[in-house]
Amino acid sequence: MSTPYKRLDKNQAAVLLVDHQTGLLSLVRDFDPDKFKNNVLALADLATYFQLPTILTTSFENGPNGPLVPELKAQFPDAPYIARPGQINAWDNEDFVTAVKATGRKQLIVAGVVTEVCVAFPALSAIAEGFEVFVVTDASGTFSEVTRQAAWDRMTAAGAQLMTWFGVACELHRDWRNDVEGLAALFSNHIPDYRNLINSYTTLTGGK
Amino acid sequence: MSTPYKRLDKNQAAVLLVDHQTGLLSLVRDFDPDKFKNNVLALADLATYFQLPTILTTSFENGPNGPLVPELKAQFPDAPYIARPGQINAWDNEDFVTAVKATGRKQLIVAGVVTEVCVAFPALSAIAEGFEVFVVTDASGTFSEVTRQAAWDRMTAAGAQLMTWFGVACELHRDWRNDVEGLAALFSNHIPDYRNLINSYTTLTGGK
Amino acid sequence: MSTPYKRLDKNQAAVLLVDHQTGLLSLVRDFDPDKFKNNVLALADLATYFQLPTILTTSFENGPNGPLVPELKAQFPDAPYIARPGQINAWDNEDFVTAVKATGRKQLIVAGVVTEVCVAFPALSAIAEGFEVFVVTDASGTFSEVTRQAAWDRMTAAGAQLMTWFGVACELHRDWRNDVEGLAALFSNHIPDYRNLINSYTTLTGGK
Amino acid sequence: MSTPYKRLDKNQAAVLLVDHQTGLLSLVRDFDPDKFKNNVLALADLATYFQLPTILTTSFENGPNGPLVPELKAQFPDAPYIARPGQINAWDNEDFVTAVKATGRKQLIVAGVVTEVCVAFPALSAIAEGFEVFVVTDASGTFSEVTRQAAWDRMTAAGAQLMTWFGVACELHRDWRNDVEGLAALFSNHIPDYRNLINSYTTLTGGK
Amino acid sequence: MSTPYKRLDKNQAAVLLVDHQTGLLSLVRDFDPDKFKNNVLALADLATYFQLPTILTTSFENGPNGPLVPELKAQFPDAPYIARPGQINAWDNEDFVTAVKATGRKQLIVAGVVTEVCVAFPALSAIAEGFEVFVVTDASGTFSEVTRQAAWDRMTAAGAQLMTWFGVACELHRDWRNDVEGLAALFSNHIPDYRNLINSYTTLTGGK
Amino acid sequence: MSTPYKRLDKNQAAVLLVDHQTGLLSLVRDFDPDKFKNNVLALADLATYFQLPTILTTSFENGPNGPLVPELKAQFPDAPYIARPGQINAWDNEDFVTAVKATGRKQLIVAGVVTEVCVAFPALSAIAEGFEVFVVTDASGTFSEVTRQAAWDRMTAAGAQLMTWFGVACELHRDWRNDVEGLAALFSNHIPDYRNLINSYTTLTGGK
Amino acid sequence: MSTPYKRLDKNQAAVLLVDHQTGLLSLVRDFDPDKFKNNVLALADLATYFQLPTILTTSFENGPNGPLVPELKAQFPDAPYIARPGQINAWDNEDFVTAVKATGRKQLIVAGVVTEVCVAFPALSAIAEGFEVFVVTDASGTFSEVTRQAAWDRMTAAGAQLMTWFGVACELHRDWRNDVEGLAALFSNHIPDYRNLINSYTTLTGGK
Amino acid sequence: MSTPYKRLDKNQAAVLLVDHQTGLLSLVRDFDPDKFKNNVLALADLATYFQLPTILTTSFENGPNGPLVPELKAQFPDAPYIARPGQINAWDNEDFVTAVKATGRKQLIVAGVVTEVCVAFPALSAIAEGFEVFVVTDASGTFSEVTRQAAWDRMTAAGAQLMTWFGVACELHRDWRNDVEGLAALFSNHIPDYRNLINSYTTLTGGK
Repeated sequence: MSTPYKRLDKNQAAVLLVDHQTGLLSLVRDFDPDKFKNNVLALADLATYFQLPTILTTSFENGPNGPLVPELKAQFPDAPYIARPGQINAWDNEDFVTAVKATGRKQLIVAGVVTEVCVAFPALSAIAEGFEVFVVTDASGTFSEVTRQAAWDRMTAAGAQLMTWFGVACELHRDWRNDVEGLAALFSNHIPDYRNLINSYTTLTGGK
Repeated sequence: MSTPYKRLDKNQAAVLLVDHQTGLLSLVRDFDPDKFKNNVLALADLATYFQLPTILTTSFENGPNGPLVPELKAQFPDAPYIARPGQINAWDNEDFVTAVKATGRKQLIVAGVVTEVCVAFPALSAIAEGFEVFVVTDASGTFSEVTRQAAWDRMTAAGAQLMTWFGVACELHRDWRNDVEGLAALFSNHIPDYRNLINSYTTLTGGK
Repeated sequence: MSTPYKRLDKNQAAVLLVDHQTGLLSLVRDFDPDKFKNNVLALADLATYFQLPTILTTSFENGPNGPLVPELKAQFPDAPYIARPGQINAWDNEDFVTAVKATGRKQLIVAGVVTEVCVAFPALSAIAEGFEVFVVTDASGTFSEVTRQAAWDRMTAAGAQLMTWFGVACELHRDWRNDVEGLAALFSNHIPDYRNLINSYTTLTGGK
Repeated sequence: MSTPYKRLDKNQAAVLLVDHQTGLLSLVRDFDPDKFKNNVLALADLATYFQLPTILTTSFENGPNGPLVPELKAQFPDAPYIARPGQINAWDNEDFVTAVKATGRKQLIVAGVVTEVCVAFPALSAIAEGFEVFVVTDASGTFSEVTRQAAWDRMTAAGAQLMTWFGVACELHRDWRNDVEGLAALFSNHIPDYRNLINSYTTLTGGK
Repeated sequence: MSTPYKRLDKNQAAVLLVDHQTGLLSLVRDFDPDKFKNNVLALADLATYFQLPTILTTSFENGPNGPLVPELKAQFPDAPYIARPGQINAWDNEDFVTAVKATGRKQLIVAGVVTEVCVAFPALSAIAEGFEVFVVTDASGTFSEVTRQAAWDRMTAAGAQLMTWFGVACELHRDWRNDVEGLAALFSNHIPDYRNLINSYTTLTGGK
Repeated sequence: MSTPYKRLDKNQAAVLLVDHQTGLLSLVRDFDPDKFKNNVLALADLATYFQLPTILTTSFENGPNGPLVPELKAQFPDAPYIARPGQINAWDNEDFVTAVKATGRKQLIVAGVVTEVCVAFPALSAIAEGFEVFVVTDASGTFSEVTRQAAWDRMTAAGAQLMTWFGVACELHRDWRNDVEGLAALFSNHIPDYRNLINSYTTLTGGK
Repeated sequence: MSTPYKRLDKNQAAVLLVDHQTGLLSLVRDFDPDKFKNNVLALADLATYFQLPTILTTSFENGPNGPLVPELKAQFPDAPYIARPGQINAWDNEDFVTAVKATGRKQLIVAGVVTEVCVAFPALSAIAEGFEVFVVTDASGTFSEVTRQAAWDRMTAAGAQLMTWFGVACELHRDWRNDVEGLAALFSNHIPDYRNLINSYTTLTGGK
Repeated sequence: MSTPYKRLDKNQAAVLLVDHQTGLLSLVRDFDPDKFKNNVLALADLATYFQLPTILTTSFENGPNGPLVPELKAQFPDAPYIARPGQINAWDNEDFVTAVKATGRKQLIVAGVVTEVCVAFPALSAIAEGFEVFVVTDASGTFSEVTRQAAWDRMTAAGAQLMTWFGVACELHRDWRNDVEGLAALFSNHIPDYRNLINSYTTLTGGK
């Protein structure tokens, strides 16, 4: 078994959101914009829901790369926010690594733009330092599907685990009995098909 | 010129939303669910923004087809709402046609689920009675791309004009000087790439 | 309006099933086999459900083209069955045209294999003789999507109307109040998503 | 050789069907519904044909997720049926694991909805406990192809073997001389192209 | 009926092969090379089989466009061969038009590289002069699918009929009783699936 | 013949470049960015090569839409340049229409961003006033392929002719003898496959 | 390095062609038929060209699976030909394994229909016995791309190397100086783009 | 961790450009030509920008394969240039290996045409000799996506790291503070979306 089952644990995990900036987002072409926006906000909502330590970082936010997406800034007002002065690999930034280590977490849930650089570089560096890395593939975007596949290939070979925001949420929650309403709201807000199921159900059963 | 330019006019147009029901939406597979939901809500928002008379109708909403999507019901609380007792073609329902004619409008902007039935049937009937019909292709969904193409082909041959919600909004607005803020908000809320442009711009110019 | 709305009427329509033979089906590559089989059987079921006169024909069924699909033979044991001795265009076969005319119907619902030949040729011939022709696009298959598009283009230009089996069923039925149970069974048997809706609904309401 | 050839053996294998529920199926978009339904029923038929111990489980079947697909319930009336009270990973449910272990089998053939959660979680857990896991990829569905690819990647890295129902059937059967008629019927019922071959052959050779 | 059924007649039709040159073929990207080569040779074989007058033409064959594909040159050693000194639209070349008119045929079957230029220009010119034009879409290639679609659109609007080599062969042949062996050989040589049918059939029936 | 052959004539044609602005280009997703940039610059180069009157226009260029692409501004320093104060349809701007009419040309070659608005609106308006309109499909971009198809459908129905920059260049040039070197350079600069042909040829013949 | 470079050697390699039968070929849908036929014949030609020991085997060739493709039978008249009486995995057939071992070769180049069964099973078995296995992916076909991907995943995990016929030919040949004419003919016969290069070149240089 | 993070270092890396020849480029069909040309030139520009030792090699450049793309020859006038007399695997050419070793670099950035041969063979050979190999996937082209996937699979299994030119540039640069202007120019010249960002930004901030 080359990469044994590493299971996400809400007491062990932190979320790293890397370079979701308004300019860089115009480079993302491996996901439809509506879907990608939804995926990123869903990841943000799950980080909030599970109260995971979350770290924000940007690259050159005063230049053409543009500012961090305002919704993320608004959702995590107290999160460590590292505007990197130049390092491309966030892991090369001391403040960023310090913030990661300060969480005391060993499982890193990473997403960003673009996948093969802003996600892959810190992911590979973190693995090399012994962290368990979970890439949120659908909240990470890049130039093309070919680029994405090459980036996945490199990260997988190094031991990263590829997931999606929905899989991350399910693995963290473990058991619906921990809380039905909150998780159902998370899913309903970000999965139209699921919302339809709930609306049909609610109407028929007369309940909320 | 087989179908001369018929230009949408906000004083001549009404919006028909046909069978966007929670159950029927599970049949839609020619659009990604995130994108489709966004398109339907964008159409609803533009109907509100341009104060177009809007008519809602459903088919068998107490059965498996499910209730009207709640967001639409909430957005148009005073719109004529025709729960058809059985007619598949909304135009076969007298109340529906009466409501349409009561608007006094000659241009009908139509969207619905599924395209080849709930959209095409009333569209073809309305054309046959002399209305100008504008199909909002991206707020209308169906089983597959093949089905959509066949439906477009039939409607085009009969003289319907195929548009998207964005094109409809632009053609109705005519001139940005009529109102910049409102239209920009409509676009920003439903086009992530456009929102990114505005966010980058606003940050740089220090403006709103 | 180049092709005005011609509306299917169950008292005016007949179904022509052309060359759905076990050998020829191996040529069909514009639909997945599971889906195509389902579409053809759905069309057969709707012909039975609406009691439409149905005509079967084959080309060279004792050679490599193979016999008619057994399910069709079994479903229409009393339908006119014309094994053409050589004519490629079924409309060139006198017995076939005689059978069509004997139905007294003016609306022809046509499907077959392959689209650009076995469907297009009789469709074009029938239009030239004044029939209204409705092509069931998803129960007609051919070598590739390019071939299908070219065939659609030629038939549309001549005035054929492109539909799918679901659209045909809905246009023929007109009003659910004519019969709920039968049509729901037809849809449930051939649309898995619809069956799921009904099963969810039935479970919740405890009814049939 | 990182994952050596583990060969399915009908005396060593059990089948786990996880969360094929009428509501959850509306989330599946990486397979066409006709094809997916066929694949799931084919897997059920092969489990019956090879008399493999089969275990059914569902998640929240009284809520929006909906009941188990009725065909599966009907086909395995005596199979262990675990309606999980809340555990997302079926392997977290003691009754489920007990049922699996009670089969005495070491090879687990797993399929379910959705792939990255309901299939991947128990698959990874079972591998961690020393089971050999065979994922039936075409009887497992999820939100998108991207999600599927990420899920496959994670399961492969952990040592799961990816198969399809047809490959599973062939590997279990080993030799046509064990039984021609039964296996041919299984294939003919679920592979239209194969049925066409058999029908052509039977006609030419004068009967089955 | 905007474009009524014009039926190919082997006594009325001629074939125009425009600019299938070894250099220009490297520009063709809307068909896979194996498939495209097969389609062009199939069209050549049907022209020979039906003894249709055939005209070859090239553009700048001593420059980078390269010589005519040798197989075509070899197959039609006695056909009029017009190496155009510069005209892009073959119909602007007097010798070419003279050769076309010398055939006495009113139906022109046209194929070439690239579709929107070498096919569309002479097709549109010929229609303007009263010829019936049949475009062999799958023996005509160009830069991309978008380019092809635009070219089809322009030609269809002008009244050209879109076909494929197989449809052309079937429409010309009319009745298998005119000759089974020759047409079956044509199909068998260019349709692998058809060849497989014949080989299976021949083996079972012990025939040739 | 619904849309007879209207042939581009370099003495009758003008080019309209509508809203190719740096911000709006981030909305274009129906073409790969590398390809789209190349197509737009190729159109600009052909306008220069054939000395066609060219008109530039922009919408809100000081806001988020961004400035005109600098390469276009540089290439046409003396062209009429209409920065529209608010009109969405360029044809609603009096200065624009005046500039168009001042060219004295009756054939308008139109490209822009986005297709269904910035191209379709002025195209439809110009047709309504009797101009012949040629849409350069591959130098016009929009949100998605679905949007593009709907826009093409509407423009085609009104009599616009769909072309690509390569087809436009070929139809304008008529005969290579008018100038080989210039046209070959145009193609070589914008068609890598063509450049390869020329480089291979030149090397072998020792020429330029 | 999990799978180190194993390099094909023409003195160490044998070719196994498994179940390329006329009936089974109708199941292949992950390659276009024209392309697939070409790939299989190219593999056969390279086996002949490099004088590799080649072994043919079929499954149930007197039933619906049909006879071996006649071209293969004709090309290898003296090759071991094992018509398996029932074993699905060719490696379960003693005669087949004996024939493989009789070649004395340790490198096995395998292709067949369908990929996940007729190729994967003997490939996995051979690896387990210490052979080096090279799968010719483009001369192996199956039901769908999903099936192919799952089969590739399983074979790769076990250490098989995925290649194509062209890569195999190049790796075996090592150096063009061993023979230019023969290899160029092989490529020219099976790669239309390559043949075009050669034809352009030959014409310009006046050579053969 | 099967393939630990090997990080590109501009003092350790060399670039190998293998067989980007004008004839061979016509075989590349897994990338659009505009995009592929841009990718190759971007890789050349980054090699120049980072002053990486670069080695050029060709195969049979006087035959149909054609000369090296002139832009590459021009950009690296002093680079070792090995016109191989026959070796297909560049690593079999002593001069090539000598040139590689003369760079003293242990990290090899490889791109070429076609991927499964001209890239994969030397990549695998270099890995076997202890080099770290980074494949520039988007500057390497081949016959089809299937071929590319198989080639990636083989190279990944042997330990090659798959990247793109953009990822290579970012990993080499490490920190924008090393130089903003040069890297921004590199990106702006080869990423239209990035150039748009810069143009919008520059206009707003009044800078150049």
